[in-house]
Amino acid sequence: MTHRIGIIGASGYTGAELIRLIETHPKMEVMALVGNTKAGSSMSDIFSHLSHIKLPNLTNFEETNFEEIDLCFCALPHKTSQEVIGQLPKNLKIVDLSADFRLRNANDYEKWYKETHIKTELQKMAIYGLTEFYREQIKGAKLIAGTGCNAALGQYVLRPLISSSVIDFGDIILDMKCAVSGAGRAMREDLLHSEASEGVKAYAVGGTHRHLGEFDQELSLLARQPIKIQFTPHLIPANRGVLATAYVTGNSEKIYNSLYSRYKDEPFIHVLPFGKMPSTQDVRGSNYCYIGVVGDRKQDKSIIIGALDNLTKGSSGQAIQNANLMLNEKETLGLQMAPVFP
Amino acid sequence: MTHRIGIIGASGYTGAELIRLIETHPKMEVMALVGNTKAGSSMSDIFSHLSHIKLPNLTNFEETNFEEIDLCFCALPHKTSQEVIGQLPKNLKIVDLSADFRLRNANDYEKWYKETHIKTELQKMAIYGLTEFYREQIKGAKLIAGTGCNAALGQYVLRPLISSSVIDFGDIILDMKCAVSGAGRAMREDLLHSEASEGVKAYAVGGTHRHLGEFDQELSLLARQPIKIQFTPHLIPANRGVLATAYVTGNSEKIYNSLYSRYKDEPFIHVLPFGKMPSTQDVRGSNYCYIGVVGDRKQDKSIIIGALDNLTKGSSGQAIQNANLMLNEKETLGLQMAPVFP
Amino acid sequence: MTHRIGIIGASGYTGAELIRLIETHPKMEVMALVGNTKAGSSMSDIFSHLSHIKLPNLTNFEETNFEEIDLCFCALPHKTSQEVIGQLPKNLKIVDLSADFRLRNANDYEKWYKETHIKTELQKMAIYGLTEFYREQIKGAKLIAGTGCNAALGQYVLRPLISSSVIDFGDIILDMKCAVSGAGRAMREDLLHSEASEGVKAYAVGGTHRHLGEFDQELSLLARQPIKIQFTPHLIPANRGVLATAYVTGNSEKIYNSLYSRYKDEPFIHVLPFGKMPSTQDVRGSNYCYIGVVGDRKQDKSIIIGALDNLTKGSSGQAIQNANLMLNEKETLGLQMAPVFP
Amino acid sequence: MTHRIGIIGASGYTGAELIRLIETHPKMEVMALVGNTKAGSSMSDIFSHLSHIKLPNLTNFEETNFEEIDLCFCALPHKTSQEVIGQLPKNLKIVDLSADFRLRNANDYEKWYKETHIKTELQKMAIYGLTEFYREQIKGAKLIAGTGCNAALGQYVLRPLISSSVIDFGDIILDMKCAVSGAGRAMREDLLHSEASEGVKAYAVGGTHRHLGEFDQELSLLARQPIKIQFTPHLIPANRGVLATAYVTGNSEKIYNSLYSRYKDEPFIHVLPFGKMPSTQDVRGSNYCYIGVVGDRKQDKSIIIGALDNLTKGSSGQAIQNANLMLNEKETLGLQMAPVFP
Repeated sequence: MTHRIGIIGASGYTGAELIRLIETHPKMEVMALVGNTKAGSSMSDIFSHLSHIKLPNLTNFEETNFEEIDLCFCALPHKTSQEVIGQLPKNLKIVDLSADFRLRNANDYEKWYKETHIKTELQKMAIYGLTEFYREQIKGAKLIAGTGCNAALGQYVLRPLISSSVIDFGDIILDMKCAVSGAGRAMREDLLHSEASEGVKAYAVGGTHRHLGEFDQELSLLARQPIKIQFTPHLIPANRGVLATAYVTGNSEKIYNSLYSRYKDEPFIHVLPFGKMPSTQDVRGSNYCYIGVVGDRKQDKSIIIGALDNLTKGSSGQAIQNANLMLNEKETLGLQMAPVFP
Repeated sequence: MTHRIGIIGASGYTGAELIRLIETHPKMEVMALVGNTKAGSSMSDIFSHLSHIKLPNLTNFEETNFEEIDLCFCALPHKTSQEVIGQLPKNLKIVDLSADFRLRNANDYEKWYKETHIKTELQKMAIYGLTEFYREQIKGAKLIAGTGCNAALGQYVLRPLISSSVIDFGDIILDMKCAVSGAGRAMREDLLHSEASEGVKAYAVGGTHRHLGEFDQELSLLARQPIKIQFTPHLIPANRGVLATAYVTGNSEKIYNSLYSRYKDEPFIHVLPFGKMPSTQDVRGSNYCYIGVVGDRKQDKSIIIGALDNLTKGSSGQAIQNANLMLNEKETLGLQMAPVFP
Repeated sequence: MTHRIGIIGASGYTGAELIRLIETHPKMEVMALVGNTKAGSSMSDIFSHLSHIKLPNLTNFEETNFEEIDLCFCALPHKTSQEVIGQLPKNLKIVDLSADFRLRNANDYEKWYKETHIKTELQKMAIYGLTEFYREQIKGAKLIAGTGCNAALGQYVLRPLISSSVIDFGDIILDMKCAVSGAGRAMREDLLHSEASEGVKAYAVGGTHRHLGEFDQELSLLARQPIKIQFTPHLIPANRGVLATAYVTGNSEKIYNSLYSRYKDEPFIHVLPFGKMPSTQDVRGSNYCYIGVVGDRKQDKSIIIGALDNLTKGSSGQAIQNANLMLNEKETLGLQMAPVFP
Repeated sequence: MTHRIGIIGASGYTGAELIRLIETHPKMEVMALVGNTKAGSSMSDIFSHLSHIKLPNLTNFEETNFEEIDLCFCALPHKTSQEVIGQLPKNLKIVDLSADFRLRNANDYEKWYKETHIKTELQKMAIYGLTEFYREQIKGAKLIAGTGCNAALGQYVLRPLISSSVIDFGDIILDMKCAVSGAGRAMREDLLHSEASEGVKAYAVGGTHRHLGEFDQELSLLARQPIKIQFTPHLIPANRGVLATAYVTGNSEKIYNSLYSRYKDEPFIHVLPFGKMPSTQDVRGSNYCYIGVVGDRKQDKSIIIGALDNLTKGSSGQAIQNANLMLNEKETLGLQMAPVFP
């Protein structure tokens, strides 16, 4: 049986990526594409690379028959997302890709997003979508909160180290290198080719990036004590990919073993041989996350480097992985395409 | 039943692309990877993006048991290719990605490749691998000569116009823009990031590019008269993709109709609405070829633009498409992944 | 004596490039930067790479004392440009970088720019800014119309061939590859890094690009007969540079000699040895234009390739070169910086 | 009076950059270009972007008349450099761009470069070329050891903080993002456009990068106690530029004041307003270094980010700056060109 899929907010990059992944998914079919500002448009008007694919035209939310949908991906900006999801049928399975349900606590949401959360009852029932760590809850969930792409990668790198207490919780730095598509299809001067290409810069410096809300919540919960990491993202002239360089205090062998044993049976998280480091080119266009570990020359200092594709494992691939679980399909279904290199 | 696949010459980009495509092909499995200079290596040593995939290690040609192989892709440099294929079992199905069997005539081969062809009996039996135009012959073939990537694109753009005589055969210019991976994983100064990025240049100017041998052969055969086109390739700072801008004399509506009617039932060739033009970004990582047509302001002058991914539709995807036919599978099997954008 | 320079419209790329060039010009000093929408801002707010340079803040047009200015560059969008220039003091020397005064005829302007020209008296007195061909007139001019960047390059490649009648005037094709900065600092989706990088596409196909107005005017004037060329620009993932591939009918040696003899004493136009072709990387950041010639394998068909930096020789460098002449300085002053490679 | 300049090893990127800078230097002229493997070649054979510039052909070392040279830049690989410099006339002023004389101690050299130093007497007399901190010694020196590009940037960021003791010396992390030209014009697979573009990876992880030898030496000397920092470089798909993200323990205001007061009179080091961060695009092609400071959300943790162009301020620009001092010219002569943006 093919599952009938709806996508709300299909005109952004994560929407296009969902369509790409569903195109070769053996059990999913796109039945509705919802977008009020571009209602009536065809997807080929919005993304010319989808010209050869038969897809429904975009429809208004109000005109969409959600009774004919089994599961809905919601790829809207935060705030809009909670408003829209609040209007969806109660029994519809929903995977939200926005930030609206990532934080469990309305105060935290307000702190990081400077908006009052208006759907706190949905916020309470949402399950955090980091599949490898919330798998069982996701299976029975009605609403999944897809994680931030940086937050996903950072947690893949750090969670096993915190669970196994092999690092100093007070001394964690994540220096991230993030491709431009992470900012979405936004009309921003710094995202123009002329400005973003051929160079690199930091942004959201000083611990102001919103994904810190997720780190604080998840890592503290895991450690059963407050953890505050340092996190500085940098904009890289590449379209896809995030690389996280984690600087921690702890023994590199213990760290390696902790990561290796945690992930050795995971289908999408691959720990490289000790000392070998991943590049974002290694995982481009795929749902895989690669992790490498090395000890620094300084006593008891270690470096862990992780890489994933922000649009796939960092958002739309993760969303499909979670949807597979919610639909009682094999978790890896439609997601094992190899990375695109070069 | 899964077909057992061998790849000879797996350490180049077309080899890696074959592995990528087979990884999600429902009826193919890689059983042998052959490479004498890197025999004993694992594919993850050669291509780190394949680290998570279970693949056989590279073996020496001599040690490889070809009896256990149903079909073999050969992704070696020309000249080496004919030598190696000459030693393969006679009943083995072979798809060659090199230039060795593209030209039907030993003299033409010598003219363009400055080498004497030493396997002229194989040259005679080889079928030219432009699937859409040699489909029936490919089904029963033992040896397929994969086309040049530029030659494939140029023919997709031009063949219907020649068949239907809607253009002046004496006045055809192909200005091509070719991504760097078309040159392979070669240690050439002009392929370094520092030299190739952030700019564009022509190469093989003056009608010296070897793919002209294919154009001359195929277009003349089709027209039943000698056709010599002009073809100037340019190196573009992108990893994948070829864009062909064809300048022809002929009525743009007739040209459009000729292309549209020829390709409307083809699964991988997509003619855009009149006046809409493709980009290489539209087809990246996919087996699709997009074509657009427009009339110039000058009377009776038309411009046709085609785009494909040189590593997929231009070589390894085409090879899989042909292999599907040879193995009596559906031609599109494992090849309908959507383009990767952005 | 240092010439006092004003720049109107300093917040775009050509404005920034003017400031870059003037920074090391021994006889020019920026005295006023005019920009109504960003009046009061510092240049470092608008272009962070100018942070270390002492520059006047942006002022309102109305508040600017043009009596203290010797020469004014105007880097505004067309239409706005003619309005603003119409309000400048009559005795002020002006180099306009917009399209407003490139066409000598109000009807042509209306045809290509879909706007009525409201300053036809200025249009009549403006001198076309292609320095190498209008040098004497520029020396005494009050208003220079800077050329389009593509128009400049195309004319460098074609004018000597037309003057010396070594090519067929009815059969001229210019296939151009244009870097993204040619489109300016515009908020357009197709100029985002995610959309423009890693690929290539044509635009303004079919002979609709506005620079054709300049080609028509200048080449016809030169030939004393109407000349209509074909011109198709392509967007290349690079920040700076235009490459023109010209396809013409004519003998390549005669063509070479015609170009060589015309340019051998020009300081900024460099004709490469016969058969050697330029890349845009060769001229990046410089005021040089490189030109190469080769004969095609087809009888009497030749290919000429030219390269320049659209922001330097194609606009702001040309503007300084013209300003030098108007200010009675050496034409090359401040413009002989070598290309930036890699 | 014009100083007569020789360049030994002119076929690499730092050689080409020296020629670029000297081209507009009012007091330097290239009199000899020395390169044994390419002796007899013209520079336009080696770097096509220099085609329009009149330069001497490359000569053999043995045939070069060093009596006619006032100052010689040596841009050879390490080890070769000490051999060649050992053969130069004793009274020739030399600026070496290799690593051979950066470390004051032969043991340190052997430790980091795995080679025995054979010119320890030269090593002793060499002055470390970090201009802003060795200015007086450079003025009278005969042999300057140009710094590593990463080492220069890291020291610009860190030295004032160590001098003023505003940070914890035991807790310094430099996460660097380095453009590909830093690796030189080397035939390495990972430097090919297809491999380096569109992604990011770390290299020399675990504290193995050779520039650590310089950091250890210089920072320890400055602190009068051993300092060992962590330093992880990453390869970025850009041609020029290094960005250093320094993570330190210390008060951000004190850090800012320390940097600001140290550099406020320096011509090439520019400290941005507090909280504003540089990009490598800000300094491309220029001799400027930009530095920004911000406090992290974590108590007493600060982030300092520096950016420079590895080929200019990081090597060839620095070399010219030092040569200016040695030749008794104004330090900034020929070096104040503005950054090239976009």
